[in-house]
Amino acid sequence: MKENKVMYGKGLSVACVPFYPCGDRFVPTGYREDRDTLEQKLEKIASLGDVTGVELSYPAEFEEPGPMAEMLKRVGLKASNLEVEIFGAPKWKYGALSSRDDKLREEAIELSKKCVDAAASMGCEQISLWPGQDGFDYPMQIDYKEAWDRTIDAVKEIARHRSDVKIAIEYKIKEPRTHIHFSTVGKVLLTALETQADNVGVMIDFGHATMAGENVAESVILAHRQGKLFHLHLNDNFRMWDDDMIVGSVHLWETFELFYTLEKIKYDGWYSLDIFPYREDSLGTIRASLDMVRKLVEAAQRVDSSKIAQLQKANDAVGICEYLRKELLG
Amino acid sequence: MKENKVMYGKGLSVACVPFYPCGDRFVPTGYREDRDTLEQKLEKIASLGDVTGVELSYPAEFEEPGPMAEMLKRVGLKASNLEVEIFGAPKWKYGALSSRDDKLREEAIELSKKCVDAAASMGCEQISLWPGQDGFDYPMQIDYKEAWDRTIDAVKEIARHRSDVKIAIEYKIKEPRTHIHFSTVGKVLLTALETQADNVGVMIDFGHATMAGENVAESVILAHRQGKLFHLHLNDNFRMWDDDMIVGSVHLWETFELFYTLEKIKYDGWYSLDIFPYREDSLGTIRASLDMVRKLVEAAQRVDSSKIAQLQKANDAVGICEYLRKELLG
Amino acid sequence: MKENKVMYGKGLSVACVPFYPCGDRFVPTGYREDRDTLEQKLEKIASLGDVTGVELSYPAEFEEPGPMAEMLKRVGLKASNLEVEIFGAPKWKYGALSSRDDKLREEAIELSKKCVDAAASMGCEQISLWPGQDGFDYPMQIDYKEAWDRTIDAVKEIARHRSDVKIAIEYKIKEPRTHIHFSTVGKVLLTALETQADNVGVMIDFGHATMAGENVAESVILAHRQGKLFHLHLNDNFRMWDDDMIVGSVHLWETFELFYTLEKIKYDGWYSLDIFPYREDSLGTIRASLDMVRKLVEAAQRVDSSKIAQLQKANDAVGICEYLRKELLG
Amino acid sequence: MKENKVMYGKGLSVACVPFYPCGDRFVPTGYREDRDTLEQKLEKIASLGDVTGVELSYPAEFEEPGPMAEMLKRVGLKASNLEVEIFGAPKWKYGALSSRDDKLREEAIELSKKCVDAAASMGCEQISLWPGQDGFDYPMQIDYKEAWDRTIDAVKEIARHRSDVKIAIEYKIKEPRTHIHFSTVGKVLLTALETQADNVGVMIDFGHATMAGENVAESVILAHRQGKLFHLHLNDNFRMWDDDMIVGSVHLWETFELFYTLEKIKYDGWYSLDIFPYREDSLGTIRASLDMVRKLVEAAQRVDSSKIAQLQKANDAVGICEYLRKELLG
Repeated sequence: MKENKVMYGKGLSVACVPFYPCGDRFVPTGYREDRDTLEQKLEKIASLGDVTGVELSYPAEFEEPGPMAEMLKRVGLKASNLEVEIFGAPKWKYGALSSRDDKLREEAIELSKKCVDAAASMGCEQISLWPGQDGFDYPMQIDYKEAWDRTIDAVKEIARHRSDVKIAIEYKIKEPRTHIHFSTVGKVLLTALETQADNVGVMIDFGHATMAGENVAESVILAHRQGKLFHLHLNDNFRMWDDDMIVGSVHLWETFELFYTLEKIKYDGWYSLDIFPYREDSLGTIRASLDMVRKLVEAAQRVDSSKIAQLQKANDAVGICEYLRKELLG
Repeated sequence: MKENKVMYGKGLSVACVPFYPCGDRFVPTGYREDRDTLEQKLEKIASLGDVTGVELSYPAEFEEPGPMAEMLKRVGLKASNLEVEIFGAPKWKYGALSSRDDKLREEAIELSKKCVDAAASMGCEQISLWPGQDGFDYPMQIDYKEAWDRTIDAVKEIARHRSDVKIAIEYKIKEPRTHIHFSTVGKVLLTALETQADNVGVMIDFGHATMAGENVAESVILAHRQGKLFHLHLNDNFRMWDDDMIVGSVHLWETFELFYTLEKIKYDGWYSLDIFPYREDSLGTIRASLDMVRKLVEAAQRVDSSKIAQLQKANDAVGICEYLRKELLG
Repeated sequence: MKENKVMYGKGLSVACVPFYPCGDRFVPTGYREDRDTLEQKLEKIASLGDVTGVELSYPAEFEEPGPMAEMLKRVGLKASNLEVEIFGAPKWKYGALSSRDDKLREEAIELSKKCVDAAASMGCEQISLWPGQDGFDYPMQIDYKEAWDRTIDAVKEIARHRSDVKIAIEYKIKEPRTHIHFSTVGKVLLTALETQADNVGVMIDFGHATMAGENVAESVILAHRQGKLFHLHLNDNFRMWDDDMIVGSVHLWETFELFYTLEKIKYDGWYSLDIFPYREDSLGTIRASLDMVRKLVEAAQRVDSSKIAQLQKANDAVGICEYLRKELLG
Repeated sequence: MKENKVMYGKGLSVACVPFYPCGDRFVPTGYREDRDTLEQKLEKIASLGDVTGVELSYPAEFEEPGPMAEMLKRVGLKASNLEVEIFGAPKWKYGALSSRDDKLREEAIELSKKCVDAAASMGCEQISLWPGQDGFDYPMQIDYKEAWDRTIDAVKEIARHRSDVKIAIEYKIKEPRTHIHFSTVGKVLLTALETQADNVGVMIDFGHATMAGENVAESVILAHRQGKLFHLHLNDNFRMWDDDMIVGSVHLWETFELFYTLEKIKYDGWYSLDIFPYREDSLGTIRASLDMVRKLVEAAQRVDSSKIAQLQKANDAVGICEYLRKELLG
């Protein structure tokens, strides 16, 4: 019980990714076997004390919302977010929402609408869109105007489908394309404003933000200022690539800063672990991430925010470094 | 005469930077002497065939618009843009528009308004704001909410001062701070929309965009879609830092793509050389940049845009590479 | 006939990679089907005018050197290089040559020796070692001393197996590990010197060098100064990741500089295309790469090397930019 | 007294940089005034409990070793290292040791020899060479073979001057040139082996290693394996640039790993703070850095190295993350 109290907002959820084979281009079949059924994966997640939700991929992980909702009920987890899978098949290789192939683009839009309906029927308040194949690889490869017009019109159409489910757009600067259109927090927020749809906002993935050269807490504030901070993904990396590592394993201070900021703005959404442990134990990486989250959330709640505000007012970097070192490292 | 025809929009202008000592932190007094008066610098710029404008720094290069306008008339150049200098003195070290020091922030706003007035009185249609010290160096150093609120309010106030002069906000991801608030094209466009001021838009600096992981032509299109592409800076770098090198000396294809895109959208603003040649000859770097601009603009006008459109429609990277190689390399 | 003359040294070879499905972690089964047999792939490669060799992966592409040699004879290609495949199965996930598992490490060494024997029996003068899983993902994850000692001892043992086959070590800074031990040209050359084995040298992959922040031509010279430049891979990328793109599609000047440098040192080894076209046509990307190679090799042979030497003597960056623009862009 | 015990090897020293104005190209005169004499700077450094040495720049900070030695005696500090200043004047803009200007190169070599003599006469065991201007800015700008031959011959000549003083070569991948020859630990170690001089080794600067994509502890081991780890600089940055920040303020885990590794190899040299606090308080940044060093050195000495060795043997990233979190964050 106590553990849950230190967690934010609607709760902490986990994506099932660590239980999949997690391959790369050199070992495409993955570094581990996929042994469990989806229900067994969910049971393992539910057995972790602090986790109350799960993030699901649609239709990759399920197609019928009814049976899925029942399975979630059985294992005692809520659906925190449904991700529309519009990036994981060869047909999407040149994009989904921006596709120059009208039929394919329509298919992506329809799938997104069905995902919105599935979410509504399962009591899940939001879906996420990551148009990861919507971008380009070479200079001069595409007409950017056409790509952006088609993307934004698609987002508008999906958002209009129903207003009671939120659409969180996830951004990432590269991979699998060398350039992805939704690359930074600024571009997603710009899109949210352009669509003028209340239910379009942003999902900030820690590693994606870091890869784009962003400070994650600043991105959180930018989104929050617009009332557009819909969802969060936790993980870590070495800034050059989306390494999807254990939370806090590289950027300790920035991860603390994220939680401090969420505390400050009284963030009331979900946040999810989104890691991709190629070689590490599935449950182990989740547990190590949760332990770090708990440690840093406790610290974020414990520190003297008026003292910090005072140091920040003075731009006092030395004071901040000294204070955080004492508070976190003892 | 013929050369000028291939140049875009209002014309090509040059900033005087290459004539200054161009120091760095190891050689702060610079790698060359500052021998010429401002008028002599302008005369040298005017002697280059294709250049019809100059970009000036206010109040670093002049304080009184009247005499400045006369000097420009004498040398035969127009003022393409006035940059407000709110980053080059120790007092701005923790920011200007976002400063937590009310008095200092007010000083920055007033200076910007005076710059707007100077522009108007000189027949210069725009100023640029580069709040390069407005950012932070360490995690947790500042309150991002406060910083952004203050910045955007300041931009609003400057924009309201008069509506007949455009305000082009220049972004850059780092330097001189490890993180600058206006870091990407998306953040500036978001700000432009939030301010709801018609005269607030973006200046895209080639190297700043590249440093932020952007494709410059895509950033141009994003700005153009919003009617917010106000100004352009040309230069080049190795993506990690703002090396401010000769145009096209690293990113040949992307530089071509920029001109191809400007041609396509019929860009009608100014564009300026903004290079910082630490060790190279002042006029030489400008001339080598102009020669490359001319070469690539000619190519952008010569290529078969319907052929390119067809290849782009098909996402045909191979076809594009083959076509551009033949067109540009013979 | 004429085309072949402009190619360097032993000739230009191609790896079969573009004919494989080329998947990534989001589309692990790949963006295309693997339709051809190895012999069909080789026939397609042989049909390209300029290519005289092929680079093969052992034992991934063949196990018995006899039949393989016959197949090569049938299609009219030479084996330019055999790569030992010690990175593409889950068992190598924590490394091969540096593995802390004695038995696994022994397996990797034995496989490498068998590859050396296969090369000798096929009249192929070299093998390449890319210990791409030999590295680490997290700080503190491994004992670096042990890892390097084991790696270097393994290289020594493989090199000693027979002296008539060269061992070209390929380096890369990351992927599939977040850190790979052989990350830069300097580390490989250091290893070559430490082993004191004449047959240990370096393979420089254009994109790997670029990703590591190297200038490729400078790396070529460093290796050549030590008599250790054994092999070359051609491709391109955006510096942050090993995008394995069409030759010259990003770094035109650096690619030209590479050929200019090979010309200067009278490079007499093989060089290979090593691209990974996820979405592009297999033969198309090879052809576009070859066309660029030919174009730049011709330019490298045509330019006035005494003029260039004179400009270089004076560190004249402006002069070099002007000269190259005129020579390459007309 | 107790504090000194936790410090390594010969001791901890500080460079005077934080007391200088610390300008950049936008504020070349610096963000603070240079108020103190050298002796006053040294007194302030000496007043910090843990510091027993100072790193001096020759001839920028002193020319005559006699009076300098007396001043050090007065303030109670040892000279840990003398840096030859061959990068801070316009004349060195195209390099010092590699200069194509014979006379200038000779001047750099002679200055280095005089520095070696000064060190010997002051009882300082080593000098450092950072040929930071020895590199290039543009592709094709220089002849790499000539540059490396001249550089290595210069190092040999300096090393031969006397064998009782060590020459620590400092590497950095860029700044002030876009490419510096001595860019990575591998290139310096290769040079050390090529010169066959016992007194040539490497200085590893934390931020320079990080900027080059290195893991600092691995670089330390590579140097130590060759008996070439001569000196260390402590600081931190955001990986893209040499931000020279407070120790541990970004890379906590890697900084811990560095101390853990130094402990393991029983490092017996000096290590120095080398920070460049543009905007922060001079003494404050030094003190915050020292406090972090002490905290992490204590942790490095306290942790269970056999437990860590066991986890490392198993490549157990999860176990390492969990263990370090508990040990460092409580």
